[in-house]
Formats: sequence, structure tokens, C-alpha cells
Amino acid sequence: MTQFVRNAWYVAGWSRDFGAALRPLEITGEHMVLYRASDGRVIALEDRCPHRLLPLSKGKRIGDTVQCGYHGMTFGTDGRCVRVPGQENLPASAYVAAYPVEERHGIVWVWPGEPEKADRDAVFDMPELADPSWHVHQGDALHIRAHYLNVAENLVDPAHVSFVHPTTLGNAASENVPVHVSTSGAVITAWRWIRDAEPIGFFKAFGGFSGNVDRWHYYHLHLPSTAVIDFGSADAALALAEEDRGQGVRIFAIHFVTPVNADETVDHWMHVRNTALGDEAASAQMDAMFRVAFAEDKEILEAIHVSEARPQRRKPVRIAIDKGPNVYRKRIRDLVEAEATEDLGAPVAPSFIQHD
Amino acid sequence: MTQFVRNAWYVAGWSRDFGAALRPLEITGEHMVLYRASDGRVIALEDRCPHRLLPLSKGKRIGDTVQCGYHGMTFGTDGRCVRVPGQENLPASAYVAAYPVEERHGIVWVWPGEPEKADRDAVFDMPELADPSWHVHQGDALHIRAHYLNVAENLVDPAHVSFVHPTTLGNAASENVPVHVSTSGAVITAWRWIRDAEPIGFFKAFGGFSGNVDRWHYYHLHLPSTAVIDFGSADAALALAEEDRGQGVRIFAIHFVTPVNADETVDHWMHVRNTALGDEAASAQMDAMFRVAFAEDKEILEAIHVSEARPQRRKPVRIAIDKGPNVYRKRIRDLVEAEATEDLGAPVAPSFIQHD
Amino acid sequence: MTQFVRNAWYVAGWSRDFGAALRPLEITGEHMVLYRASDGRVIALEDRCPHRLLPLSKGKRIGDTVQCGYHGMTFGTDGRCVRVPGQENLPASAYVAAYPVEERHGIVWVWPGEPEKADRDAVFDMPELADPSWHVHQGDALHIRAHYLNVAENLVDPAHVSFVHPTTLGNAASENVPVHVSTSGAVITAWRWIRDAEPIGFFKAFGGFSGNVDRWHYYHLHLPSTAVIDFGSADAALALAEEDRGQGVRIFAIHFVTPVNADETVDHWMHVRNTALGDEAASAQMDAMFRVAFAEDKEILEAIHVSEARPQRRKPVRIAIDKGPNVYRKRIRDLVEAEATEDLGAPVAPSFIQHD
Repeated sequence: MTQFVRNAWYVAGWSRDFGAALRPLEITGEHMVLYRASDGRVIALEDRCPHRLLPLSKGKRIGDTVQCGYHGMTFGTDGRCVRVPGQENLPASAYVAAYPVEERHGIVWVWPGEPEKADRDAVFDMPELADPSWHVHQGDALHIRAHYLNVAENLVDPAHVSFVHPTTLGNAASENVPVHVSTSGAVITAWRWIRDAEPIGFFKAFGGFSGNVDRWHYYHLHLPSTAVIDFGSADAALALAEEDRGQGVRIFAIHFVTPVNADETVDHWMHVRNTALGDEAASAQMDAMFRVAFAEDKEILEAIHVSEARPQRRKPVRIAIDKGPNVYRKRIRDLVEAEATEDLGAPVAPSFIQHD
Repeated sequence: MTQFVRNAWYVAGWSRDFGAALRPLEITGEHMVLYRASDGRVIALEDRCPHRLLPLSKGKRIGDTVQCGYHGMTFGTDGRCVRVPGQENLPASAYVAAYPVEERHGIVWVWPGEPEKADRDAVFDMPELADPSWHVHQGDALHIRAHYLNVAENLVDPAHVSFVHPTTLGNAASENVPVHVSTSGAVITAWRWIRDAEPIGFFKAFGGFSGNVDRWHYYHLHLPSTAVIDFGSADAALALAEEDRGQGVRIFAIHFVTPVNADETVDHWMHVRNTALGDEAASAQMDAMFRVAFAEDKEILEAIHVSEARPQRRKPVRIAIDKGPNVYRKRIRDLVEAEATEDLGAPVAPSFIQHD
Repeated sequence: MTQFVRNAWYVAGWSRDFGAALRPLEITGEHMVLYRASDGRVIALEDRCPHRLLPLSKGKRIGDTVQCGYHGMTFGTDGRCVRVPGQENLPASAYVAAYPVEERHGIVWVWPGEPEKADRDAVFDMPELADPSWHVHQGDALHIRAHYLNVAENLVDPAHVSFVHPTTLGNAASENVPVHVSTSGAVITAWRWIRDAEPIGFFKAFGGFSGNVDRWHYYHLHLPSTAVIDFGSADAALALAEEDRGQGVRIFAIHFVTPVNADETVDHWMHVRNTALGDEAASAQMDAMFRVAFAEDKEILEAIHVSEARPQRRKPVRIAIDKGPNVYRKRIRDLVEAEATEDLGAPVAPSFIQHD
């Protein structure tokens, strides 16, 4: 059960990753070739010549078209065949799929599902990405040998932080602090405040705090798999209200979780902050701390992936802190079910009639 | 068909292999984590947190308990959950299996099957292991990519020695000497004497023989997979009776064959001798010779493992020298059958009634 | 679907590849051990002892027989068992298959199918291999991770040359030149002439042409998988007729395509030429150019092999230039069907009767 939501936007890479060269990528099990056309648009085509199945990424560009490296069959940016060497006619079935692409804020998104359902307004956005009072910094593309649902649920799960990241993002102070979960549209939020406690490693380094702080973690998981983690700290003496947390030192860690296939996932992560604006040394320091923390997640998630493949004698157990992950998995199952079936509309009369 | 006997003791390692650290091991396809508790006992728990399936060996010890590395669920030495962070109640289903462990003569045994059937008196033992007139020396843990039945049957098969180990444990003199096989309880014994022949390499090195010797090999295979190979030589002029072989130079090579899974086996081997007592240089020399010989077995057994996985057009043939292996495989099949079924006891009246 | 034609001769290697040593090989999924007997014949036996399945290639030669490395069971050059250590009788079922072998022109052929059908007159031959006015040179054994049908069809497919080998064997001049296809018995031929065009890299190097040439490619594919590519160039001013191409600079590139298994193929290639006779420097230069070209094929074919293993949503398309490959695949399907069924002969009366 791959459980991919195909009618969705997924991050293919940063804008800088795409140029003239043909770049193969796999997203939700779809093999694609991406390149930037002469007008600047990023093009995503099915990476499989319909003739002998050679990946088109093994061919070459002829202007904005892609010529197969085996027999020269050539395809335009819309996937239609424009040349078959050795014959005049171009058969209608000689095409490759063309995937909708959207590029915004230096991020390239691809829609692997039905093209006619691609809604360009549904691409993830947040005002801070274009606001000069925030510093935006792109991090890495972290490859993880794990199922994307396990990667994404980790990002709506504040409870793991104390145990997986004790020296960077968490500490023992939060081990038993309850987690709140709410949903709003396509966003699931899990959060908790740890009041009047020692600052974690991250904010010792960047917040300059020495005494106790109030610390918050808001995990916003936008379906299917984009996570925005709003976390920060403020002097405990201020006793800030939740809605005033913008007055503290605040960071958004954003994870764009892209399912590659049933065994692989890529997490493109970046961060946005209201402190140290324009300070690239601070960005590099944060990158370094995040790399330590995310490598901790990667180790856990890859070990779970191996463990899940073993025969299971008993069902896993669910516990109180799973509320965010549980809601998330249910929502994904519903989306997958909706994609796998055709909804023919509501009945004209009530469907369920109660007889006395 | 894995053909594992699960209700049995298997060697997990030497005593020195287990300390405070969490050590993952696989035995008969069971993934376990082993560690030595503060009272000195070796503990073996199922290596799978029941929550998100992370192997507990990725977590850490908190005193004698093991805390999962993902969300901190914690288990005692009996496998019961003692803490679930974020909640007060400890669900009954939140446990991991705890495997019986027995440690004796510097050897750690684990019982992967039903714990209530673990009979501590059934752990393999022999008086020479505690007798100061014998020198006991632990060898290596040899990893073999082969099915354990092929590894173990090799140890009740004197006939292979002339061909696999011509320079160490055998020579051409024994090629056609018949093999005797007998069984006694859970022990199958195959043996032969080669009378009045040139000594093999091993006893040239350790027995100091130059003229002809009488040489014996007794292969005792204790079900399911512990082999004691009693071999030695004596001056041919003595014409020793079988039961007097203790007067010769005598060595027990002991192999504890542990099935890892259907493709992997570990052979912990050691040796016990009535010569060169306390002479560690002699032990090291013997280790070196055994390593040569067992590497010869490993090469053969791993090649067979690959060959067995290929499609087979014809049934293998059985020949006269297979008597020991044949008896062994039949006994294992019977044990596996007994474990796979429930015996509800004998009938109160004869089951089979003959009508005239 | 492996689609192996088993009743056929396949190249096992060059004569120099076989000596006293036991050499394991896989052909059409059959595991064989080959060695040269004392009378000079190359022997090919099933590489699996019928006793415990150890490959005989792990054993050793005793004279012209092969002794298994595990228990010494020994087999003659005809595959019959000649010794079972530990017993007198030699069971009739204790044999290994012996494969027909034919050696000619320094090439060793094996017949993996039914031995009684092996027709030694059917081994591929051509007069130039024994004609001193031609220079014969053996090249490499190229291992390709691809299905042999894809490798062989590439050799009856002139259309790929312009795109895969633009700097060595082809150039853009041929991209749209039509391909002719004919069949004669067990040979499928695809060919084309490119008249009055710039010489390709190969003939710039070896023909000494500077002005325009007429260039030909004849791809003769002998079923099941031996390809003879007759290619050459002549001064365009001569306007040679097809049958007079022997007057030009002419090369036969010969490929012996041996299916290893469903995922691997070996291409033993050699070349034969009517120019630079006896010039080993020229042979080495040609080898170097062929190695570049065949590495280009290998890259394409291996990428296709990976692509074919992916789930396919749509059927591949066939185009005009596929005529040679299409005929080839149909002929192979017919041969495989013929091998898989028993033909009990023609009916004595018409089978199909039309009623008015």
C-alpha cells in the first residue's frame, strides 16, 4: 500500500537545481525528466520514450524539445511528439505525459496526478516568504530511506523531540508536557508550550537566553506533506500570551516532504526567522544544527522502515501522544480513497430512510 | 521452509560479548536486543517497540530498563512497559517479548520459543568443560551465508573431511573408510576409525606423531544443532580399543550452530583438549588451523546455498555416506512438526480396530 | 518471460578462454562448468553435483574427470558418475548433464538444449574467417545488464546509429534514410545506403577518405542471436552498385550475443576486414573505436532494462524503422513456441473444411 496522494503539489527541488540539463526525478513513483526551457519555465515530462522505453533523460535537448537517445523520437514541452525519424506521420499515441509545474519563492513544485485538476492557487505559500522583516534561507534536500507517511507524521509529533533531539531541539523539560491537536481545513496543528524552563540548545545558541524561557512548538502539517514548525522562546518573565509569540525569537522550520516511492522520501527543508536578518553566518550555524537534528530523525526513520518490513506478530499500539499522527493518517487515507473512486454526486432524495 | 526448531537453546555469544550496551541479534528470525543488567544477568528482549516499531537497540538504557529512542516508551527486564511519556496509564498490550537466557561456562544461551517450555536443565553441557585436566578454549563466531541445516549436517558427516580438508583435518587415507551411525536420545553419532595410517596435518602439528597412527572421528550432533567432534590419534602400535581412546591425544571441537534466518547462520566454535594444558600458544595455533579448515567449509556451504536457490530440474540423490545427515534431517522435521501442531494426548481406547 | 531459444549454439568464449581450469559459466540460465580435456576438446558439464548441489566448478579435476569438492563424487566428460566414495555401486541417477560443444576458428560454442538435436553443421560460419585476404581479429566479451532480445534487436536496427553513435559509427546524414528489411532462411537483413555524404568517424580514421563517400550498412542477424554487420565506404565518385561493395573499404563487425539469464547478456564481438591486413596497430585502433561505440549501446540497453522493469501504464508504440526488430522478435517467438510444444505431424486430410 503506497498511499500516495497524487493530485497534489510536491516540491521537486529549489529553483537553482534546474537549468538546461535534463534531470531525472522520481515523485510518487512517477519517473520524470525536468529541465528549464528557454523562456525560463521548468518543464516536467514522463521519463520514458513510448517507443523502446529509454528514459528521455538519457537523450538530449534540441532547443526546447527532448530527443530520445536511442532512435531520435522527439517531444515538445507539452509532451507531444514532434518528430519520428524515418517517417513523416506522427502517431497520436506517440506522446509522453507532461506534468504541471509551478515555481514560486525559489521553489519548484510538480503535480504528479491528473493535470486538469492542478490548482495553481493551492501551492503552499505563507506571507513571511515575501516579507523583508523575515530572513528566508533554503537548506538541504535530505534523502531518507523511509515511507513518506512516517517522515511526515514525525513533523506533527512534538512528543518525539525530547527523545530524538535531546541536545538540539528538545530537552527533558518537555517529556511529559501534553500536546494539543486541532485541524483547520487542510492543516493539522499539534502544539505545546513549555513554560518557565531552561532554554534548549538551539535557543541558547541563537536567542542569547541564559535564564528560564517560555518555549513553544507549533507543528502545522499542510496536507499531504508540507510541515511548518513554528517554534521559539521568550523570557519567562514576560509570560507571553500564545498570540503574542511574535515578540519572542521565532523560527519557522519548513519541510517539504516529497514521496519518491514506497521506500524513499526526500525532505527539502528551509527556515525563516525574525532574528539575525541578513546574517549568513547565523544561517550557516542554524543549518549545521538542523543537520544534526535531522540526521537523528533520519536514523530513527530508516530503522523503522527496516523494522516495518519484517513479519509482524502483533498489532502496533497507539498512545495518547499519537493524536496528531493519527489524525494525519486518517486524513491521508480519506484523500487516497477519494482519488481511487469516482464520486457521482449527491442523491436527489435522502438516501437513508428510517422505517418505524 | 525455514525449518527452525524454536523451542530450544541457541548460543547467542560468549559471555564477554555482553555488557552494558544494547546489542541487537537475530536468532531463528527473531530480532532481539541483549544486554547485561546490573545484577549480572543477561537480558534478551524483543527488539521492536510496540508503538512505532523502532528497534529498542536504537534506544538507551535507563538503569536496567530500556527506553525507546523515538518517544521514550520504556520496558523492564521482563518486557513489561514501565513508562509511556505523556500519559499515566500503562496499557497491558504495551509489552515486548522477553526471552529466557541461560549463561554457563562463559557461554550465553537464548530460548527463542515459548518461554514456559524453557528447560534450564536442557542447556548443553559436558563434564570436560569444568574439569581442570582438560584445556578449554573459546574460538570465533563464524558467520556463514547458508541455511543452518546444511551447516549442522556437515558436522555429522565425516565423509566430507577427506575432500574439503585434505591438508588439515583429513587426508586421502580415509576416503573409502565406512561411517557408522547411531542415535541415543537427542544425540546422533557418526564415527569412523582410520587404523594404521599416516597422521593428518593437525596431529603432525600437535601430537608429535611421525609414524603411523590410529585416528578416530566421533561426530556427536545434539539436536537441534550443537556438535561435539571428538577426534584424536594414538600410536598405531598401541592398537587402542575404541573405549580407550582417552589414552591418545584427544580433542573436542565444539560447534554451536545458531540459525539467524533462512539465509544466515552463526557457528560459535571452541575446543577442549587433554594435551598442552595451559599452553596459550598451542591454543592460538589450533585456532589458526581451525580457521583454515572452517573457512573451507564456509566456502562450500555458501556455494551450495546459492546453488539451492536456483531452479532444480531433478531431485538430489542420496548416497551411502549420507546416513548421519539423513537421520539428522528426519529428526529435525519431526521436531518442527511437533512444534507446529498440538498433541492432545493418547486415546483412552485403541484407536485402530481391526474388523475381521 | 525469458524467451530463450535453447536448441541453438551460443558462444561460450574464445578458444584462449578455456584451459585446464574449471570455469563456471551461465548460458540461457543453465549453469555449466567448462574445461579443456587432455585430448584438447572443451567439455561442458552441468555445474551442480546431484548429491548436495555444490557447483562442480568448486571441485577439482582428476585427470579428465571432475571430482566434487564436498564428498568426492566424480564425473566423466560425458557427465556419468565414475566414483561415489564410500560405496561400490554407481547409481544411474548420479549424473550431470553434458552439453554439446563445438570449437571453430578460435571460437567455442555450446548447445544448452536437447543434446540429440545439436546439429554441428548449424554452427555459424562465413568464408572470410578462413580466407587470408581478410584480416580476422577477436575483440572483447562485453557484459551487458539487459535482456538478450534487446541486445540482439539493436544489431538489426540501423536506425539507432545516427543517435547513439554520432561520432563513431553514424552521423546526421543518415537520420532519415529509409531502412530495407528482408529475410532469407534463418537470417534477417536490414540495410541502407547513404549515398554521397561525409564519411563517418570510423572511415575517416581507417579509409583515408576526405571527400564524400557512399556508405553502406548491412545488418545480418542469424537466428537466434549472431549478428554480422557488413559496413563500409567507397568514394562517391565511383557510384558503386550494391553488389560491388567489395571494392570499397569493407568491415564485418560480428557479435555473438549469448543470453546469460533474464537480466544479463554477454556480447563477444570481433571484426574482419579487407584492409590493413596484418596491421595489429590498426586492429587495436579499431578495438578502441568499437569499445567507445559499444559502451554507448551498453548504456542505452542497461537504462532500458531498468525502465522495462517499472510498472507500465501504456503499451509501447511501434514505428516504421522497427521493421527489422519486429521481424526478429516474431521469429524468436515462433522458435520459442516450437520448443515449448510437440508437433505431432501433418494431418492426413485437410483440417479445415468449408461448408456452404
